[in-house]
Amino acid sequence: MEYAVGVDIGGTNTKCGIVNRRGEVLQYEQLSTPEYETAELFVDALCVRLNLMIEKVGGHEHIKGIGIGAPNGNYYTGTIEYAPNLRWTGVIPLADMVSAKTNLPTALTNDANAAAVGEMQYGAARGMRDFITITLGTGVGSGIVANGQLIYGHDGFAGELGHTIIRPGGRPHWSTEIAGSLEAYASATGVALTAREMLAENPGKDSLLRKYKPEEITSKNVFECAMLGDSISKEVYRFTGQILGESLANFVMFSSPEAIILFGGLIKAGKLIFDPTIEHMEKNLLPIFKNKVKVIKSDLHEADAAILGASALVWEMKQSHASL
Amino acid sequence: MEYAVGVDIGGTNTKCGIVNRRGEVLQYEQLSTPEYETAELFVDALCVRLNLMIEKVGGHEHIKGIGIGAPNGNYYTGTIEYAPNLRWTGVIPLADMVSAKTNLPTALTNDANAAAVGEMQYGAARGMRDFITITLGTGVGSGIVANGQLIYGHDGFAGELGHTIIRPGGRPHWSTEIAGSLEAYASATGVALTAREMLAENPGKDSLLRKYKPEEITSKNVFECAMLGDSISKEVYRFTGQILGESLANFVMFSSPEAIILFGGLIKAGKLIFDPTIEHMEKNLLPIFKNKVKVIKSDLHEADAAILGASALVWEMKQSHASL
Repeated sequence: MEYAVGVDIGGTNTKCGIVNRRGEVLQYEQLSTPEYETAELFVDALCVRLNLMIEKVGGHEHIKGIGIGAPNGNYYTGTIEYAPNLRWTGVIPLADMVSAKTNLPTALTNDANAAAVGEMQYGAARGMRDFITITLGTGVGSGIVANGQLIYGHDGFAGELGHTIIRPGGRPHWSTEIAGSLEAYASATGVALTAREMLAENPGKDSLLRKYKPEEITSKNVFECAMLGDSISKEVYRFTGQILGESLANFVMFSSPEAIILFGGLIKAGKLIFDPTIEHMEKNLLPIFKNKVKVIKSDLHEADAAILGASALVWEMKQSHASL
Repeated sequence: MEYAVGVDIGGTNTKCGIVNRRGEVLQYEQLSTPEYETAELFVDALCVRLNLMIEKVGGHEHIKGIGIGAPNGNYYTGTIEYAPNLRWTGVIPLADMVSAKTNLPTALTNDANAAAVGEMQYGAARGMRDFITITLGTGVGSGIVANGQLIYGHDGFAGELGHTIIRPGGRPHWSTEIAGSLEAYASATGVALTAREMLAENPGKDSLLRKYKPEEITSKNVFECAMLGDSISKEVYRFTGQILGESLANFVMFSSPEAIILFGGLIKAGKLIFDPTIEHMEKNLLPIFKNKVKVIKSDLHEADAAILGASALVWEMKQSHASL
């Protein structure tokens, strides 16, 4: 048997596991990312766990390599560059550091790109050569596959669709300060902001959301109230879906994907978000693109998805070696 | 010597020529596209000319193949599909028809994609693996290259960047009816419409453009008046550049190209259009993309560019054969 190691580095937790070609997670470990003051200490702790897991599945000769998904991860250089939500500053040669301590080939990319490779290897995009994955979570991440390859761009940073502009001069993003980007609306933070705006703009209108202080409303509150039939909460999803749908139309006219695969907290709202998204995507497409593009949910288990995505880099790595 | 045949089918003229690997056009012919009532008659007339030119350079054994750029051309199927500005309706298997009459392998794609391949083979994009070409002419066409390959999408129709939305709810497009697409502003038609709007919105303001009837103003008039220092005409370019720049920022965050290559009538305005374009692109980029992307003019001769682009498909074709 041949296995891949997947490592997902998040701001809070780092998850790692050993995965087979069918996408089954055979071994699993977790560690606290911010507990380690330096990247060196973190890599030491991570590799102790990786080496132990590797022994449990029969040793290094059964491992094809290690794939890592990390914020601001650069595929070309294997480095994490100026990640805003990690303690370690500057440019960190993480892939080389992990490779040195495990003696295994190691590939690294950003977490959203890893998710796209995971969908292609194990998930809803099996057999597809052209698709886009979009994660609608705290932020909006994306990975683009065209001609069967992940699009990395000339510098390794392609696929930042959450930061494309869909409302020029619109809501400023809390961190990038760019006005009217997709992430300013179609993320958990964006949904909460939209709810607060709609409550303020409709002071006379009843809403279950009024039981919360406006500044404390979260996307989870909006979801729960929408499920109870609250009309302002449902309108928040309709508006979010409209903006997402208009953005998806733009993405379709760029790379003409077979499918767009959505993932993350926002899609729990089901039809409330999918219906307006598809409606406004279709409305803004040229006739040649209409009624062709599937907008579907990821079918990877959310708990495993990050590790699966990272591990899938390893099978890709193998393909590119085989092609040398 | 080895040559490629390039054919560019336009609504008015079809240009064809024989090109060497350095991008020199050795033979050239032209025919009127709408003169031929059916695609069959057109292909007959075209292939008579092609076969004559081919004889002049030494015969078929010196020709690698034929590349065709055509409106709504589909690379995967070699067909022209429902092209709005051609007389021949429906789906036309043009590549097969030409191949049958010339006994040469024939590839077909849309004219904007052909232009991108031309830039990669002979022009400003030589040596680049990630770039975007944008034609700012009567319409706005585009071709996207990532990982050294043209992005065709799952159906062959990728790269319709002129139809991406940059002003949601904005100016309706005269043909697609989509609101606020890039082409509605950054095309010759768009520039003329913007000039008419600005004249109407500023009735008290002097302008050289007032010597024309508003409905007769063309982008050429705007260009000439801007060159004479007319302030409304210059403002038209500033506004057009802003919209184009915001769109380019979106494209950069999609595929992170090394360069964006601009082509077509609008770029004759030089700094008047380039300066605001670059300013507003940079303003809307994430820090990781800033001051990295070159925005440059095509360096192909405009008269030859369409033929060169189409012919470049042939050298690509050869590469893909070699990789089998």
